[in-house]
Amino acid sequence: MEKLKKFVDSSLFQNTILIVIVINSIVLGLQTNQKIEDSIGDILSVIDTICLGIFVVEMLLKMIAYKFFGYFKSAWNWFDFIIVIASILSGLSVLSSVRILRVFRVFRSLKGLRGFKMVSSLKPLQVIISAIGKSIPGITWTALLLLIIYYIFSIIGVSQFGEAFPEWFGDIPKAMYTLFQVMTLESWSMGISRPVMDVFSYAWAYFVPFVLISSFTMMNVVVGIVVNAISEVAEFNKKEEHEAKGTADIKKEIDAVKEHLTKLEEMLTKMEDK
Amino acid sequence: MEKLKKFVDSSLFQNTILIVIVINSIVLGLQTNQKIEDSIGDILSVIDTICLGIFVVEMLLKMIAYKFFGYFKSAWNWFDFIIVIASILSGLSVLSSVRILRVFRVFRSLKGLRGFKMVSSLKPLQVIISAIGKSIPGITWTALLLLIIYYIFSIIGVSQFGEAFPEWFGDIPKAMYTLFQVMTLESWSMGISRPVMDVFSYAWAYFVPFVLISSFTMMNVVVGIVVNAISEVAEFNKKEEHEAKGTADIKKEIDAVKEHLTKLEEMLTKMEDK
Amino acid sequence: MEKLKKFVDSSLFQNTILIVIVINSIVLGLQTNQKIEDSIGDILSVIDTICLGIFVVEMLLKMIAYKFFGYFKSAWNWFDFIIVIASILSGLSVLSSVRILRVFRVFRSLKGLRGFKMVSSLKPLQVIISAIGKSIPGITWTALLLLIIYYIFSIIGVSQFGEAFPEWFGDIPKAMYTLFQVMTLESWSMGISRPVMDVFSYAWAYFVPFVLISSFTMMNVVVGIVVNAISEVAEFNKKEEHEAKGTADIKKEIDAVKEHLTKLEEMLTKMEDK
Amino acid sequence: MEKLKKFVDSSLFQNTILIVIVINSIVLGLQTNQKIEDSIGDILSVIDTICLGIFVVEMLLKMIAYKFFGYFKSAWNWFDFIIVIASILSGLSVLSSVRILRVFRVFRSLKGLRGFKMVSSLKPLQVIISAIGKSIPGITWTALLLLIIYYIFSIIGVSQFGEAFPEWFGDIPKAMYTLFQVMTLESWSMGISRPVMDVFSYAWAYFVPFVLISSFTMMNVVVGIVVNAISEVAEFNKKEEHEAKGTADIKKEIDAVKEHLTKLEEMLTKMEDK
Repeated sequence: MEKLKKFVDSSLFQNTILIVIVINSIVLGLQTNQKIEDSIGDILSVIDTICLGIFVVEMLLKMIAYKFFGYFKSAWNWFDFIIVIASILSGLSVLSSVRILRVFRVFRSLKGLRGFKMVSSLKPLQVIISAIGKSIPGITWTALLLLIIYYIFSIIGVSQFGEAFPEWFGDIPKAMYTLFQVMTLESWSMGISRPVMDVFSYAWAYFVPFVLISSFTMMNVVVGIVVNAISEVAEFNKKEEHEAKGTADIKKEIDAVKEHLTKLEEMLTKMEDK
Repeated sequence: MEKLKKFVDSSLFQNTILIVIVINSIVLGLQTNQKIEDSIGDILSVIDTICLGIFVVEMLLKMIAYKFFGYFKSAWNWFDFIIVIASILSGLSVLSSVRILRVFRVFRSLKGLRGFKMVSSLKPLQVIISAIGKSIPGITWTALLLLIIYYIFSIIGVSQFGEAFPEWFGDIPKAMYTLFQVMTLESWSMGISRPVMDVFSYAWAYFVPFVLISSFTMMNVVVGIVVNAISEVAEFNKKEEHEAKGTADIKKEIDAVKEHLTKLEEMLTKMEDK
Repeated sequence: MEKLKKFVDSSLFQNTILIVIVINSIVLGLQTNQKIEDSIGDILSVIDTICLGIFVVEMLLKMIAYKFFGYFKSAWNWFDFIIVIASILSGLSVLSSVRILRVFRVFRSLKGLRGFKMVSSLKPLQVIISAIGKSIPGITWTALLLLIIYYIFSIIGVSQFGEAFPEWFGDIPKAMYTLFQVMTLESWSMGISRPVMDVFSYAWAYFVPFVLISSFTMMNVVVGIVVNAISEVAEFNKKEEHEAKGTADIKKEIDAVKEHLTKLEEMLTKMEDK
Repeated sequence: MEKLKKFVDSSLFQNTILIVIVINSIVLGLQTNQKIEDSIGDILSVIDTICLGIFVVEMLLKMIAYKFFGYFKSAWNWFDFIIVIASILSGLSVLSSVRILRVFRVFRSLKGLRGFKMVSSLKPLQVIISAIGKSIPGITWTALLLLIIYYIFSIIGVSQFGEAFPEWFGDIPKAMYTLFQVMTLESWSMGISRPVMDVFSYAWAYFVPFVLISSFTMMNVVVGIVVNAISEVAEFNKKEEHEAKGTADIKKEIDAVKEHLTKLEEMLTKMEDK
């Protein structure tokens, strides 16, 4: 059991799996090409099945090594488990549309990337990543705020422009999609706002404030993340160096002063004894 | 009175109101859908009226609890008051266009969001928000600068391209809208500048500088906010930690030196006495 | 003379001029509207002429107050001088196209804005502005780099796509304008790159790298300005506070130690004397 | 040999070459203009050949001065070497398409720019540039992540929309180009997503997440670079100033304390001797 665990955690085993993932990813890519699919499609699907088999074996080995419940403690393992199960189901099922789920196997190579990151030992990079991670609560908060703004503008949009422009403001989901497009500034004026303004001349009072509000909110997200990341990195640097340099020198100096003083004390003690 | 105040400020009361706001928001959303409106429109408008009734009662309770003038000291209460009054008026009025004002009730859920923020106790986030708040005077200043730039370019645009392109540069408001579109870089070249250049070949000398100037000004706004936020957060961190760590250690060392010295003094005093 | 100087520099005089500038700006705006021009155009042109007269008087007063050469030491005065002269010439000239230069008088209100800034005493804002000013040499450098990139891509563009797409890549200025549009990401793909790729299938190897290189270069400009601004503000804050707090406390402590020592010395000197 | 090296490294020699590069760049630009090419095309190609000759001589001189292998130690020299060889080949070859490679000679002026940078002695700028350089490993990492995201979305795109939209999602390279366009937000909605949604109504679930994920990833790159640059500059500033100011003062104070102590010791020693 311990031996199996060691084997499963070995970099040899993990790199082999990574190579299988890469091969599988390439096969999945090749299968999208009709010409290649026509000529060597059979070979590709055989390789695909073999890769799936290896993934199943890998999963089972890990389940045994970590015991069944230990395996499911890692989010990555859950991810693997769902993809492998989905792949098996898509292979069995008559529904070809489920087959597309197999593509998420490519995501498994991220794990390899994760390993790569650790090797490269780019400490500040990791600090930045963790800082971005820490700023996610802040983003969630802004996302909620954005959602309310979207919702209000959607209701206004649907009730005002819904009848005249059913494709853009027909219902709330459509209006939200349109507002997302406007937020990305894609064709917001020539494509959406100007045609709407031709019918409702006051429509600029709907689109211009939305562009300003959504841009400002998104900017706040970016500023928040930048500032968070900087203050995290600054703290990280402070802990590492600050204390070491400036104060260390002063402490040495004070130690020298103390030595002087102890000498003086000794001298006085001697004098007293005399 | 005090009891009523306590009741009105209790989280139970506030959460109940928040739930009513959320229900009301959903109803407002559902009312935009023609099919749902046709089938259960009556029920929805009844719920809407009940929600409005609850808001009126909430407002009156708060007015009594805080006395009439105390109630109007809070900007949030003003906001509630205006929305409730507008909602009542829109219900009474024959003008259906005023009904859209009801949608701003959704904004009241922001208050809930505000409560949520305080719970989450994300101190740096609050610092960032306050920093963005503090940088608003700077933004106002840049907004004024932008306005002057817009005004000058509008006048030039109208007097140069106004006759040939009445839809884009017909008058100053139209030109300002067009310039806003150009500032967001939406179809500025293929949609606006190239057609104008087909008539006035020198038009690039109008659009390219405007794109550069407006982008640079907007970038300054972002830089200003980022820098402000960072320096606020840095100060916040400094106050919390800086003094505590480095200097505290040194002070301890110096205290040790002082103790040595007091000992020496005592010894000398004794010697003198002898 | 000294009295005149005081009068010219007084805020009363400057604010009066600012009001005249604002009035003149409004008149210039109103003159762009055909309807208003038809009805009260005569009155507006009279007001415009009066404003110009006031600006001439202001300029002459300043010239006398600061003497002729002292007046031209300020860049703002040069700016005023050129605008006033251009306005007079445009009034005299039969060429109506020169009239547009009058609009730059609106820029003179920036001076008022400058005054406003000083009043608001937003020190960090001024630091940011000066930081952005200091980062202009860096921008110049990047601008030079961008120019070389533009030039190389223009030459390639003209020699490759020039014949097939004369409107976009007919000559080097046209190619540069197109590249500027591509850099702003406006319709770069659907508008420019895809049509070009229909003729030259390898064109993506021209546009995609250009988008990446130009975006990266522009990003560097922004990063450079942000970093510069931050380090300037940080230095500003450091000078104000850093030295004051941490070290001042330590110095006090050391002074206390010194006092102790002087006491000891005195005691020893007494003992010696005995 | 040493003399030649000195001559080759002299600013006179380097500036002469820089001027030749600039002349050559202008000639290359003029040659793109058909009219100029028709009238003075012969002269231009003569100047171009002379410039090439000078570059060959420069290369040979440098090769002799630094010896053959020393020359190839510098990346810039490799760059020069490849361009010169490519230029000679393009001159000899009947393939006119290789001629375009000559344009990369303009890049050589970057070297001049590099010299210019050194003259301007903008130290913080250099720190920023080196910081951006240092953040390239981080970018590589994000580029890998982006590549995996692109690959997965390409496979999904091709297998879902490939048949209906062969121009956008015909094969994986085409899908990747389309996704790059979507990432730059250019016509992503009106140009690509909406037409696709007319056929596959669920397509928003493909495009909107891609826009969000790719924007977030790119934002991380920018944040990473900004934070890296700031922490580099901060360190740079710290090294230069921090130690100097605060601690230097304290050290002086402590030195004064030490002097006091030495005096005391001397006094005590005298007393003892007595």
